[in-house]
Amino acid sequence: MIGHPAFAVEPWTLTEVAFSPEILEQTETLFTVSNGYLGLRGNLDEGEPVGQPGTYLNGFYERRPTAFEQGPPSARVPSNETTLNVTDGKLIRLRVDGDPLDVRSEGVRRHVRVLDMAAAELVRDVEWTAPSGATVEIRSRRLVSFALPELAAISYRILVLEGDAEIELTSSLVANESVQVREDDPRAAAPLYGQVLLPRVATARGSRLVAGYTTRASRLSVVTVADHVLDAEGAASDAFEESGTLGVIYRLRLAAGEAVTLTKFLSYAWSARGSIDALVEAGQGVVDRALALGYDALAERQRDYADAFWARTDVVVEGDPEVQQGVRFGLFQLLQATAHAKDLGVAAKGLTGQGYDGHRFWDSETFLVPILAHSTPAWARDLLAFRLRTLDQARARARSLELRGALFAWRTISGEDVSSYFPEGLAAYHLAADIAHAVEVYVGCSGDEEFLTQGGAALLVETARLWMALGHRDPERAGAFCIDEVTGPDEYSALVDNNLYTNVMAARNLAGAAEVVARLARTRPEAHRALVESTGLGPEEVEGWERAAADVYLPYDETRGIHAQDDAFLHHAPFDLASFGGKRPLLLFVHPLALYGRQVVKQADVLLALWLAGDRFSIEDKRRDFAYYEPITVHDSSLSAVAHAVVAAEIGDLDTAFAYLRRCALIDLDDLADDVRDGVHLAGAASGWSALIEGLAGYRPRGEVASFAPRLPAPLRRLAFPLAIRGARLEVEVTAERTRYRLVGEGTLRLEHHGTPVTLGPSHPEVGLPTLPAGPGP
Amino acid sequence: MIGHPAFAVEPWTLTEVAFSPEILEQTETLFTVSNGYLGLRGNLDEGEPVGQPGTYLNGFYERRPTAFEQGPPSARVPSNETTLNVTDGKLIRLRVDGDPLDVRSEGVRRHVRVLDMAAAELVRDVEWTAPSGATVEIRSRRLVSFALPELAAISYRILVLEGDAEIELTSSLVANESVQVREDDPRAAAPLYGQVLLPRVATARGSRLVAGYTTRASRLSVVTVADHVLDAEGAASDAFEESGTLGVIYRLRLAAGEAVTLTKFLSYAWSARGSIDALVEAGQGVVDRALALGYDALAERQRDYADAFWARTDVVVEGDPEVQQGVRFGLFQLLQATAHAKDLGVAAKGLTGQGYDGHRFWDSETFLVPILAHSTPAWARDLLAFRLRTLDQARARARSLELRGALFAWRTISGEDVSSYFPEGLAAYHLAADIAHAVEVYVGCSGDEEFLTQGGAALLVETARLWMALGHRDPERAGAFCIDEVTGPDEYSALVDNNLYTNVMAARNLAGAAEVVARLARTRPEAHRALVESTGLGPEEVEGWERAAADVYLPYDETRGIHAQDDAFLHHAPFDLASFGGKRPLLLFVHPLALYGRQVVKQADVLLALWLAGDRFSIEDKRRDFAYYEPITVHDSSLSAVAHAVVAAEIGDLDTAFAYLRRCALIDLDDLADDVRDGVHLAGAASGWSALIEGLAGYRPRGEVASFAPRLPAPLRRLAFPLAIRGARLEVEVTAERTRYRLVGEGTLRLEHHGTPVTLGPSHPEVGLPTLPAGPGP
Repeated sequence: MIGHPAFAVEPWTLTEVAFSPEILEQTETLFTVSNGYLGLRGNLDEGEPVGQPGTYLNGFYERRPTAFEQGPPSARVPSNETTLNVTDGKLIRLRVDGDPLDVRSEGVRRHVRVLDMAAAELVRDVEWTAPSGATVEIRSRRLVSFALPELAAISYRILVLEGDAEIELTSSLVANESVQVREDDPRAAAPLYGQVLLPRVATARGSRLVAGYTTRASRLSVVTVADHVLDAEGAASDAFEESGTLGVIYRLRLAAGEAVTLTKFLSYAWSARGSIDALVEAGQGVVDRALALGYDALAERQRDYADAFWARTDVVVEGDPEVQQGVRFGLFQLLQATAHAKDLGVAAKGLTGQGYDGHRFWDSETFLVPILAHSTPAWARDLLAFRLRTLDQARARARSLELRGALFAWRTISGEDVSSYFPEGLAAYHLAADIAHAVEVYVGCSGDEEFLTQGGAALLVETARLWMALGHRDPERAGAFCIDEVTGPDEYSALVDNNLYTNVMAARNLAGAAEVVARLARTRPEAHRALVESTGLGPEEVEGWERAAADVYLPYDETRGIHAQDDAFLHHAPFDLASFGGKRPLLLFVHPLALYGRQVVKQADVLLALWLAGDRFSIEDKRRDFAYYEPITVHDSSLSAVAHAVVAAEIGDLDTAFAYLRRCALIDLDDLADDVRDGVHLAGAASGWSALIEGLAGYRPRGEVASFAPRLPAPLRRLAFPLAIRGARLEVEVTAERTRYRLVGEGTLRLEHHGTPVTLGPSHPEVGLPTLPAGPGP
Repeated sequence: MIGHPAFAVEPWTLTEVAFSPEILEQTETLFTVSNGYLGLRGNLDEGEPVGQPGTYLNGFYERRPTAFEQGPPSARVPSNETTLNVTDGKLIRLRVDGDPLDVRSEGVRRHVRVLDMAAAELVRDVEWTAPSGATVEIRSRRLVSFALPELAAISYRILVLEGDAEIELTSSLVANESVQVREDDPRAAAPLYGQVLLPRVATARGSRLVAGYTTRASRLSVVTVADHVLDAEGAASDAFEESGTLGVIYRLRLAAGEAVTLTKFLSYAWSARGSIDALVEAGQGVVDRALALGYDALAERQRDYADAFWARTDVVVEGDPEVQQGVRFGLFQLLQATAHAKDLGVAAKGLTGQGYDGHRFWDSETFLVPILAHSTPAWARDLLAFRLRTLDQARARARSLELRGALFAWRTISGEDVSSYFPEGLAAYHLAADIAHAVEVYVGCSGDEEFLTQGGAALLVETARLWMALGHRDPERAGAFCIDEVTGPDEYSALVDNNLYTNVMAARNLAGAAEVVARLARTRPEAHRALVESTGLGPEEVEGWERAAADVYLPYDETRGIHAQDDAFLHHAPFDLASFGGKRPLLLFVHPLALYGRQVVKQADVLLALWLAGDRFSIEDKRRDFAYYEPITVHDSSLSAVAHAVVAAEIGDLDTAFAYLRRCALIDLDDLADDVRDGVHLAGAASGWSALIEGLAGYRPRGEVASFAPRLPAPLRRLAFPLAIRGARLEVEVTAERTRYRLVGEGTLRLEHHGTPVTLGPSHPEVGLPTLPAGPGP
């Protein structure tokens, strides 16, 4: 994409310098503005041409029936859930002297779109000579407000450059837009046929439009309110309602040199139970507040909010402008997806497209929580709150399968699991350990022990219980704790026994839960008593966890000196990658059965264990495992590159680490997965942060100690970033020669730099130490 | 069922002595009359009450969309196929003095239904006192003709016992009957919604009705012609057509002692491409022939046909009348399902119900072909012809999955695979070896070498190729030939490596194909040349098969001295059967994931290998394997018991063999699987034959030698059966003391009796030898 000639490489913006119809769907995704509550795809103001129109509300979904039914009736998935394009309020159509603006026409001399990541705003500049000969300059600005989460605002300014012009502006609200259906890519959304949004209320009076709908099956309601301000005297305006479309038309005449701006304020209020009237009232209130503020004030607040985010989060990379831009883009997407997500979770695509039906996966916990915990801990907590909110659903699902503990939804919007193909859904039990791991990371990094008493500890107890229910002692392996019939992160192997990642992370889950229970007993006896009571926890139960964690079976091949991805993996035939040339992802070309039984890895699996549970593995193991698995891994998931970057950096292969860092940073900007049309790869794109900070800077939180092992690959000159650690702010700056650590805030912080302990505190807030040079071996 | 008080245990009939509404759906299945082309469920003449109305045509199906899509677009299953209830011509409604006969009314004093397996006819006797006080005796007879396969005939006789009676008889044809939908049992058919049969022609003139339909999606057409004969003067008759129902009404008055018989002849003609007109003409022709013959002549021919079948097939068992009845019932179902099935295949339920959507499975080849080959080889050949007909489809399917050879449909009607859940469909590759095995059995038993030149050899070549494409050499196992990611017969384990049954049968397939290619080269050089040309066979290819067959990996546990069902099975945790009490089948209560990873066996798997490839295993292995696997096998498939019966007999455990024999014989009569409502378990029921002949009589065809090892468990006194072997007829009679072998026909036959060789021939056609007594050890 940024390899496309229409794009420029810039540190704080993403610019398309000319309209590029061949990548329209892709730019619609990249130019999305959103705030975690509401997302507007980067569709053109005039609505045409369009790839996928998109206006999404976090947590808002429609149900559709699932026809695949395997397993007993009690365990079936009754319906699927899918995000949907709700009322489109982005539309502002312009006519000049009767002719509509169409970016494909020859009269369009200039068309530039800029996503400004510092301002959190999308700006579009157009210069157009209409068939009448009149030439106008258009600047449209669009934001989805961080200050007023239910609000989007558009400022649409027309300046006449040449000639007199009769201007007509039609601003509208449209629901049930037809969305193109793509049936050849399972990663895209499944189609919803027919009218999904059933009209409930529709009024168009003066400059104000109100449209309310209820979804056909899920019975969720949404009300969109729009109001308009035109900064011109004497314009004629006309509100209309016509076959479901609401709108206002403005007509006026402008002379050369004259300009007019139409500002459109849009609010979206939705609810599962609330009345339409209540939603109308709420929506009107938001628009009223926006009208009082005006676009410029909203834009100013928007920038302030973004400034604060960047101050907590921004990573400066010098030496590769593409990486700099890509890493910022990934972090910007993180901001856009999570700021106001609350406890509704965050979809794999954020609010940028309908890929994967808008479902939430393990991405949030494994890949996003650690970043957020070091930038904006409250948002990490929100992400975990989604799981806490669905803990009872997870308990019920475990019970329905005759298991104990909690079985969280592998893919979901509401909290119900909707993955009907269980070998790549339900069987991915590692999710339980991923969530527990995220709790551990969040609490460790933020110091938020309260979170444990507010559901976090119960979650750890229930996930630990799941492992006890799933695992068993294999007498043929000296009673080792084995976990059979699971699917690990690598979905090109399914239903395997003793997946290394799953077993290692389950052990962590078990030991971590035991540790937290003991800590609560020690430090918060009352909370401990409440936990024991609410979960029916017995002391022998916790001892069982500790024993299982200690005895977990880790498959290892003595001959090769490498870990086996699972019991069977190393026995399987090689996969003839060459015969597929560069065709990726394989899942679009090869039947699962031809993948499952072969030594081909979709995404980091053993390597993910080496990263996330790195303290269990020696550096030699990491080297040999990396050497074996890296060449047979096809990275058909955007979650794969980061583990490779981190482990490559740790074993001292900085060139490889750098190559994988680039894959993280450019996954969406270069459309490496060839489906950015359906939405960004939120976790993949954001993981540029991890590739830099856990990879090149070698950061590992180890209990109270923040450990670093910074080294820079040749192309990079400087890496600088802040980390939020237990209320303090640590600023790190790495150059090829020196690494500087600076503590801002109260208290002390224990560090380790390439094994050397350092303590920073009020009297000694800063230290500079030599960066280890690049080269083989750490 | 025959445990039900309404049933009698009888050798040649199945009798329900009183109407039993609580088992209505079950009796509808058991009282089905069919001939392999057409099947009429045992619905009551008057159509009410009804469980599942059913009129089925072999090979006739409707498509419905499948929504489950896993895998690349090229390998997806576009639609499912399901058998359907076509035009119901069974309906004859009686009114006496204006009141309709309803078997639930108090006036019904007697209601007996008898399925006569010797006559191949269903007879129903009713005595009814109508509300008017008139008492009538009704005898209805129903047959589906073996002489005219498209024909069914019903004779409906009313005799007035008391009082004068105004009789009204309405005979009709009804399509698109609503069928109850059962969504809680995956073994039942999936529902078809809406009107599936679209009307094409409908005429009702005089006594003749013609109704033609085309299915909505599959575009198959069916024409039903009905005509009637009433043996009474002066009856008023009236043909009608009313909202899709065609009918004729007869009205007449009968005095006490008077009787009338309505005979209804029904023909069904269907086609995928033929015009409706051609079908109408064909159907009229069949009915005209039937009218000329009359019911009694048809019934006589019916009995002759059945007589001939029983002479070739019947097994006499003395000492357990239930087993006798059950074994006959199973063989009768085999007759009813295969006689006129031609090359359209035979559904798992025959034509008795819509269970499993009317799909064909491996049942036919593994369980039916060996029985038919020894009774009616032409029908065995027809079953195999179904696979030959679909060989090109199987080649194409293999190609679509980047495999060589032929990949036959796991479940299908048309020949296209419609098993969308591939872990229990596509992955059951053993099907290829099962089909090849059936070819080997058929050719060996019948001596029909021509079959090889007419496609049989090509089938062996293409199935052998599939194994070469699926298998690989595992360097960690000294280069043994391994086959990974398969599902064996036990579907409670899926996607396993080196399933013993699959590997053993694949080796047989490979070696057998090589042997046949060599034999053709030797005995029919021209056919060999044609085969080489049509399949592109190279000599090194055949050598590769031989090497792979010799090197196939058979998982074995040295410690326990038993075969492993697959690489992982013996590592898995035990399954807590006790916690499910007697709840069966487990698939209705337990999620597949909770079964896959546990040591629980749905149906004979290792044991099936011990039976079908018994010469590869020592008797000690068989003993230990049986002792290990039998207790953990739940027999949730009707295909399980027979292998247990045969292996138990072979290892000398005659009591256990007898117990499993009873399960085979009574699977449907006692409704052991609790779903006979959806159709008989054709292969399971017929396998009583195998349990007796391959089990108790120890029959094994070994090349040219027919080997026997007869022993009788205590309850049985005598076992007698004929076997067709290469054109000759061998009659075997086993009593506790003596076994008599008698050869009828030309030529000689080499036998083995408990290891003693015997040759029978024209000069020495009979021999009597001592039966080994029951007791431990063979």
